[in-house]
Amino acid sequence: MSNPFTNPTKKPITEDGVYDNAERGLANRNSGTLLETLALDITPSGAHYLLTHFDTPILDSNKHLLKFDGAFKDPFEVTLSEICNLPKTTMPVTLECSGNGRTGLSPRRYSMPWEYEAVGTSEWTGTLLAPLMAQANPNKDTVEISFTGADYGYDAGVGHHFGRSLTLEQILNLEVLLIYEMNGQPLLPQHGAPLRLLVPGWYGMASVKWLNKIEALTEQFTGFQQIQTYRFRKSVEDEGLPVTQIRVKSLMVPPGAPDWLSRDRCVDEGTVIIKGRAWTGMGHKIAKIEFGINGAWEEAQLTGRNGKYAWTGWKHEWKAEPGQHILQCRATDETGEIQPIKPPWDLAGFGNNAVQSVNVFVKSRG
Amino acid sequence: MSNPFTNPTKKPITEDGVYDNAERGLANRNSGTLLETLALDITPSGAHYLLTHFDTPILDSNKHLLKFDGAFKDPFEVTLSEICNLPKTTMPVTLECSGNGRTGLSPRRYSMPWEYEAVGTSEWTGTLLAPLMAQANPNKDTVEISFTGADYGYDAGVGHHFGRSLTLEQILNLEVLLIYEMNGQPLLPQHGAPLRLLVPGWYGMASVKWLNKIEALTEQFTGFQQIQTYRFRKSVEDEGLPVTQIRVKSLMVPPGAPDWLSRDRCVDEGTVIIKGRAWTGMGHKIAKIEFGINGAWEEAQLTGRNGKYAWTGWKHEWKAEPGQHILQCRATDETGEIQPIKPPWDLAGFGNNAVQSVNVFVKSRG
Repeated sequence: MSNPFTNPTKKPITEDGVYDNAERGLANRNSGTLLETLALDITPSGAHYLLTHFDTPILDSNKHLLKFDGAFKDPFEVTLSEICNLPKTTMPVTLECSGNGRTGLSPRRYSMPWEYEAVGTSEWTGTLLAPLMAQANPNKDTVEISFTGADYGYDAGVGHHFGRSLTLEQILNLEVLLIYEMNGQPLLPQHGAPLRLLVPGWYGMASVKWLNKIEALTEQFTGFQQIQTYRFRKSVEDEGLPVTQIRVKSLMVPPGAPDWLSRDRCVDEGTVIIKGRAWTGMGHKIAKIEFGINGAWEEAQLTGRNGKYAWTGWKHEWKAEPGQHILQCRATDETGEIQPIKPPWDLAGFGNNAVQSVNVFVKSRG
Repeated sequence: MSNPFTNPTKKPITEDGVYDNAERGLANRNSGTLLETLALDITPSGAHYLLTHFDTPILDSNKHLLKFDGAFKDPFEVTLSEICNLPKTTMPVTLECSGNGRTGLSPRRYSMPWEYEAVGTSEWTGTLLAPLMAQANPNKDTVEISFTGADYGYDAGVGHHFGRSLTLEQILNLEVLLIYEMNGQPLLPQHGAPLRLLVPGWYGMASVKWLNKIEALTEQFTGFQQIQTYRFRKSVEDEGLPVTQIRVKSLMVPPGAPDWLSRDRCVDEGTVIIKGRAWTGMGHKIAKIEFGINGAWEEAQLTGRNGKYAWTGWKHEWKAEPGQHILQCRATDETGEIQPIKPPWDLAGFGNNAVQSVNVFVKSRG
């Protein structure tokens, strides 16, 4: 189809770091998790980050159908209430947008200008997808399963419903869920109501919202969001590698009181308990957290997690001395993966798990 | 006190329109209402805009106290459960941030770079403040009542708890409420849990969140958020006038499908039903809505409101013809106030109620 967005008023996507009005619009729409809520195991409803590619569809849960289609031996469709009657699973899962940290890169592509805030943890309730896959019974020559949402729009001139794919093996190994509740309440419209996919341990793009179609494919899925984007690339020519599992990362609750505009912090001299969260992909454990004060690292204390796919709490006692300081935190997971100090560069700004830096001014008590 | 944020790394607040990293941080934190949810009478929980000056305090509702203090004859304090046992009022109220539309101004001050999205409507539940004021019984020489939240931070180097004031007359006339529920659920932390003020018909800054103190004052309140900001000013020297009631305004749900990056729209040729909302201050009614197509105005149809302080729905049938178009909407209220085409200029970017413009490309069916 022709590209409706190649009119002369539309700026091209460039690779420099200029922050223009389009990015400002995206930042206003796509809300980040308030870092102070990292003090809580579960991100409050509505405070969980949101990245919405197109518009939030307002769907009627009473009329919603999920169709199993394509190369299944026994294709079928189910209503939401039928899905709600299947065995129920609730688990806390940490989701992170793969573009989180994009603004740390230079040069970088125009896109949603996340800093640190595109991560959150909710109690998700739904049912495992695997038994429904077995019921639909994919043909032997099935290569992939695609997942399509009701949301439609354009990216780089290509009109499409948001869609992603997984292999059958991934669906089994990743404990993929069909989700209809979040924090004990019906899923909110902006989080994919009435039904979404949840792929624990992977970046958020895999957890398709407003899910209405699951298709068995005998060839690789070629949807825009699978092939054209969400790939780690070094150049436009680079075919790249798909973005999949979450990289090890950590954040602290910025201590003290903020300046309204800069969000820099002011803390009173003395002992300050710093709290934060750390997480990684695939349900792996966090092995170590270090707390950095002006580049010097001290080991912090892990305080545990409330589920295999949930972030791990940590804390550290900091003796705050008067003056200007830069605080950082750095996680290592059980596989030995450690957060880099410098952001790993990627053409579209995916997967930046470099350490967080917080500017703090410590006021003397004197 | 000395200003902890006057260190050399901190950029000064300027009056030009440069959008820097501080503004990007604010846009990532402070979430706008998704304009597509204007299709609903009530903004979904968590999708209502948020403007948080400092950090969201995480408060324990079981331990929360509201103190009536200062020049009251019978000062007292109440727990949250005591407030919940008082006569209960639920009403839909439209709140708008007074900085909504700030980016429409030029030049403009650094601040939260809202475009159109800082407005939403919730079902708020609480109790009227006036009977509690009568119980506390302000002294005859009481000039104002101040309202203080638990949130603390710095603005222009001044450390303070967020605080605002109203006169006794305003408290009576504006149907001011103490709120503990939003959309039938306990207030969310980021919206002021466990208790906030709600001042219907005024811009959002008056509706103090995390409310814990109400004080009767025998002199005018001099809190930062009352005196230093939230005033309409033409220059730094201008004492200005306080920002109070919401100005008449309207928005449409942007039609068709969006481009991911620019948020420009693509619509198929033919009849398109445009829907939107209009609102104004003080519970006044919306008298008229006009729909603009490339600068030519047609009268649209009002579809009503579900409460005195809630926005009014409207719709319009648009015959979309192929090509590039600019769609606009313009409301007039019962007092004759009408939205301007050009943004009214203000030093800090308050009260911009100029008409919304949406770029739409109409695709030919041929």
